[in-house]
Amino acid sequence: MAEGTGANFSLGDHTLSVPMELFSTNRVRLCEKLRGSEGVSGGGAVVVLQGGESKTRYCSDTEEIFRQESYFHWLFGVSEPDCLGIMEVDSGQTIVFIPRLPEDYGIWMGQIYSCEHFKNKYNVDSVRYIDEIVEVIQKMNPSILLTLMGMNTDSGKFCQEACFDGIGNFQSIINNKILHPIIMECRVIKTPLEVTVLRYTNQVSSAAHCEVMRAVRPGMKEYQMESLFRHYCYTHGGMRHISYTCICGSGHNSATLHYGHAGEPNAKTIEEGDMCLFDMGAEYCCYASDITCSFPVNGRFTEDQKMIYNIVLKANRAVMDVVKPGVSWVEMHQLAERVTLEELKRAGLLQGEVDDMMKVHMGAVFMPHGLGHFMGCDVHDVGGYPSGGVERSGAPGLKSLRTARVLQEGMCLTIEPGVYFIEHLVNKALLDPAQNCFINRDMLTRFRRSGGVRIEDDIVVTATGVELLTCVPRTVGEIEAWMRSGEKTWQPRPVT
Amino acid sequence: MAEGTGANFSLGDHTLSVPMELFSTNRVRLCEKLRGSEGVSGGGAVVVLQGGESKTRYCSDTEEIFRQESYFHWLFGVSEPDCLGIMEVDSGQTIVFIPRLPEDYGIWMGQIYSCEHFKNKYNVDSVRYIDEIVEVIQKMNPSILLTLMGMNTDSGKFCQEACFDGIGNFQSIINNKILHPIIMECRVIKTPLEVTVLRYTNQVSSAAHCEVMRAVRPGMKEYQMESLFRHYCYTHGGMRHISYTCICGSGHNSATLHYGHAGEPNAKTIEEGDMCLFDMGAEYCCYASDITCSFPVNGRFTEDQKMIYNIVLKANRAVMDVVKPGVSWVEMHQLAERVTLEELKRAGLLQGEVDDMMKVHMGAVFMPHGLGHFMGCDVHDVGGYPSGGVERSGAPGLKSLRTARVLQEGMCLTIEPGVYFIEHLVNKALLDPAQNCFINRDMLTRFRRSGGVRIEDDIVVTATGVELLTCVPRTVGEIEAWMRSGEKTWQPRPVT
Repeated sequence: MAEGTGANFSLGDHTLSVPMELFSTNRVRLCEKLRGSEGVSGGGAVVVLQGGESKTRYCSDTEEIFRQESYFHWLFGVSEPDCLGIMEVDSGQTIVFIPRLPEDYGIWMGQIYSCEHFKNKYNVDSVRYIDEIVEVIQKMNPSILLTLMGMNTDSGKFCQEACFDGIGNFQSIINNKILHPIIMECRVIKTPLEVTVLRYTNQVSSAAHCEVMRAVRPGMKEYQMESLFRHYCYTHGGMRHISYTCICGSGHNSATLHYGHAGEPNAKTIEEGDMCLFDMGAEYCCYASDITCSFPVNGRFTEDQKMIYNIVLKANRAVMDVVKPGVSWVEMHQLAERVTLEELKRAGLLQGEVDDMMKVHMGAVFMPHGLGHFMGCDVHDVGGYPSGGVERSGAPGLKSLRTARVLQEGMCLTIEPGVYFIEHLVNKALLDPAQNCFINRDMLTRFRRSGGVRIEDDIVVTATGVELLTCVPRTVGEIEAWMRSGEKTWQPRPVT
Repeated sequence: MAEGTGANFSLGDHTLSVPMELFSTNRVRLCEKLRGSEGVSGGGAVVVLQGGESKTRYCSDTEEIFRQESYFHWLFGVSEPDCLGIMEVDSGQTIVFIPRLPEDYGIWMGQIYSCEHFKNKYNVDSVRYIDEIVEVIQKMNPSILLTLMGMNTDSGKFCQEACFDGIGNFQSIINNKILHPIIMECRVIKTPLEVTVLRYTNQVSSAAHCEVMRAVRPGMKEYQMESLFRHYCYTHGGMRHISYTCICGSGHNSATLHYGHAGEPNAKTIEEGDMCLFDMGAEYCCYASDITCSFPVNGRFTEDQKMIYNIVLKANRAVMDVVKPGVSWVEMHQLAERVTLEELKRAGLLQGEVDDMMKVHMGAVFMPHGLGHFMGCDVHDVGGYPSGGVERSGAPGLKSLRTARVLQEGMCLTIEPGVYFIEHLVNKALLDPAQNCFINRDMLTRFRRSGGVRIEDDIVVTATGVELLTCVPRTVGEIEAWMRSGEKTWQPRPVT
C-alpha cells in the first residue's frame, strides 16, 4: 500500500483518524538527520528499535493492557507488543518484525494476521517474523547498526536497547551512542500531523474537564471525578489510556502536586467550599494531553479563591502572550514567578521589593514546580536537557524545570503556573530570615490549608507565537457561568 | 491499636469497609500451618516478603498506578509500594518496613506519614524503616528466614524473592522452599472475611454488568461498554483496578476467548443482531471478580441464539447443582462437557452417542477452555496444581483446566461453561474423521461466524454446596425482561 492510500489508526467515526504518514514522516525526518551526522554519513547505517513487551502483573498471568514504548511508537506506529523494527538510513526502507504466534493464539487471542496484514496496517515496506531478523539484517549488509541507548532526563532511567536472538552476530558494528540524541531531538519538534493528534487529545480531554466541572458536587469522592473523566475520554474519544495518573485534589489536597497515586488515591470527600485542582489528561494513539482546571466545587468563587485564581491566571496569560520562537523557557519561568510575586504583593500577602524576592527565590515557596514541560508521546516528553545544551539550574523552582531550552517552532509545551500553600514550604520560609521578611504573616494564616491553584494549558509554538490547544473555561466569570449553565457542551472562545 | 478497634480499608461510606482482621487472620492461619511443617517446627522461623515496587512506563517518569503484589497484600494488606514485611512464626509478631522518604516527597506526593500512622492503618505490631530491617531481624535472632520462591502454575512465572540491602548477612539461614507451597495453600481456602470482600466485588461488578446490558445499543463500540463498566465499578464501588482486561466481544468476536487486548482492543462496532459476550470484573482491596454475561444487543434472542444460550446455561446450572466439598473439579468439567454435548445433540448440531463423543474430546471443539478456576487476590488464583497433587491432563479441554483438585469448603471458583464456533477448531474437527462423523454439517454452517456464548458465575464452596456470588439476570426470560424494563436496578433472585 502506497502512502496516502488510507492506512490509519482510528477507533471509530467519532474519533480521529491518524494517517500512517505521521510515522513515515517521522522516519523521513530521522533519516535526514542521521544522514547528516558524524559516524553515519558514510552510508550503510541501519536503525534497530525494540518495541515494548507484553507484561503480566507480577508472577500471575493477569496481562496488563499493553501500551507501546514511545520511541518505537513514534517511529513505527505499531500497537502490538513484542515487535522489533528496522530502518535503512540510506533508503528509508522500513521493516517491522512480528512474533510468530502459536496456533493456539487463534483460539485465545483472536485471528492470527499475516505479515501482509500488518504491512498494510502500518504502511511499511515489509513485515517479517522476528526469527528472520538476523537473516534480513545480514542481507542488508549494514556498515553500522544503530541501537537506542540513553538517559531520560526526567526519570534518570535508561531506555531498553534492542535485543534479539543472534544480535551477537553484529556486535562489531553496533553503535548505541549516535541514535539517541538524534531521535530525541526529532521528537522535540512536532510535525503538523503530530500537532493534529495533540489538538485532538486536548479537545477531548478539555471536554471531559468541562463534563467533570458540571458534574461535581460537595459530598462526592475525588476519585469519582477521576472515573468520570476517564469514562468521558474513552467513550467519546477512544482514549483507553491516560497520560498520567489523575490528580484530583480538593481542599488542602490541591497543594499536593502529584496527588492521586496509590498512597493518596483521590479518596477524600469533596466538601462544600473546597477548591478543586483537577490535573487530568488522556492519550490517543500514544499522544498525550495534560490539563489542569482549578475551580470551586460549588461553582462560586469566594473573594479569597478568586484572588489566588486570578493571580495564577495572570501568570499563565503573561507567559502565553510572549511565548514564541527564540524565547528562553527559563525566562518564561521567571516571568511567571515575577507576575505571581507582584500580584501576591498587590494582594497584600507579600511585602517589599519583587526584585529582592526574586533574589531569594520567593517564587518557589508558592510554586515549587517548573512552569511547564515538553509534551508528546510522553506527557513529560523527551529532550528537555540534551547533552551540550543549557544545564539544569540548581536554584529552587528552576531545578524542577524540565527544560531550559530556547523555544522553537513546533515545540509542544504545557504552561502551568500555580500558587500553593504547602505547609512544608511555608513553614520553611517563615523560619528563614531571608524570606520571612517578605511575608505578611496575618494574611498568610488566612490561606494556609486552603490548598492551591494551578492553571495548565497545552500549547504549540508557532512561527509567531502559540497555538493554544486546551479549550476550557478559564476566567472566573467563564467558570462560574459554565458550572451553573444548563448547556451540554462548552463553546470554546477564540484565543485571546 | 488492638484488633477489632476499627482499622480498615474503605473508599467511602458507599463502599465496603474491610477490617484489617482479614489480614491478621491470614497471618494467624499461615503461622499455624508453618509451625506444623517440617523444617520450621523447631522454632525461630521468620517470614520475609517483599511488596510490589512502584514502576514507570518504560524509561519515562510516567508512574503506573500501583497495585500491590498479591502474596504481600494477602499477608499484610498494605497499599503502598516499595515495602517489606516480616512475621515471626512463633509469636505471630508482624513488622512492616516502609521506605524513608525524602523531604521533597512532602511537596510532590503528599504528607509524609509516620511509622505510627502506618502501624495504626494496618494494625500490625510495628512499622519501621527499610534501612532498619537488618538490625530488626538480627535482634529476632531467627533460626531460619523463610522467603518466597515458587512458580505460578497459570503463568509459569516465578515470584520475586525478597531482597534488601544486607540480606547477605542471613545467607546461611535463608530457605526459599518451605514458604511458597504453604502460603499458596492458605490462599486457596478463603476465610469468611475474604468471602465478604469477594461477595462485594461480585455485587458491584454484577450491577455494572446490568448497567451495561441496559445501555448497550447497536452502533456502539465494544470499548464504550468496557468504559461504562469500569466507570460504574469505580464510581459506585471504589474499584480503581479491574481484575483483568475487559473482554467485550460482539458478533464473531465473542468466539475469541481472551478478546480485548491491545491487538484486539474491543474496537468493533456492535451490530444489530449481534450476540455480546462481555467478560468483565473489577477488584476491590485487591480481591477480584470475574463475570461473563452473554446476551443479544437488541434484548431479544433469536431462536438460534436462545438455543445455544440455553445449552450453556444448562451446563452451568448442572455444575452448580452438584458442586460441594469432595467433588472433583475434573469431573465437573466433564459434566459440563457431557451436558453440552447432550444438548447439542438434542438441538441437532451433533449426532451419535455422547459417550463416543466424549472419547474423542468433542467437548473441547466447542469449549476449548477449562470449566473454571480459583479466584481470589488474583483472578486466576494460585494453588491450582500444587506439587504432589493431581497433575494437569494433556487432553483437549482438560489441559486448559486451571486446577484438577477435589473441592473443599472455602474454595472460590468460577463456573464458566461456554459454546463457541471458533473457525480454527471447527475446521480442524471437520477434517478429523474421528470427530466429523458426529457433526451435522448443514446445521453447523448456520452457526459459523455467530461467535459464542459463555455464562460465568463466581461461587464459594460451602459445607453443603455453593454460595453463588454473582447476581445478574441469567435465564433468557430474565435477560429479555431486564433489558427492556425501565427499572433502575436489577433485583436479585434467590439462588435456585
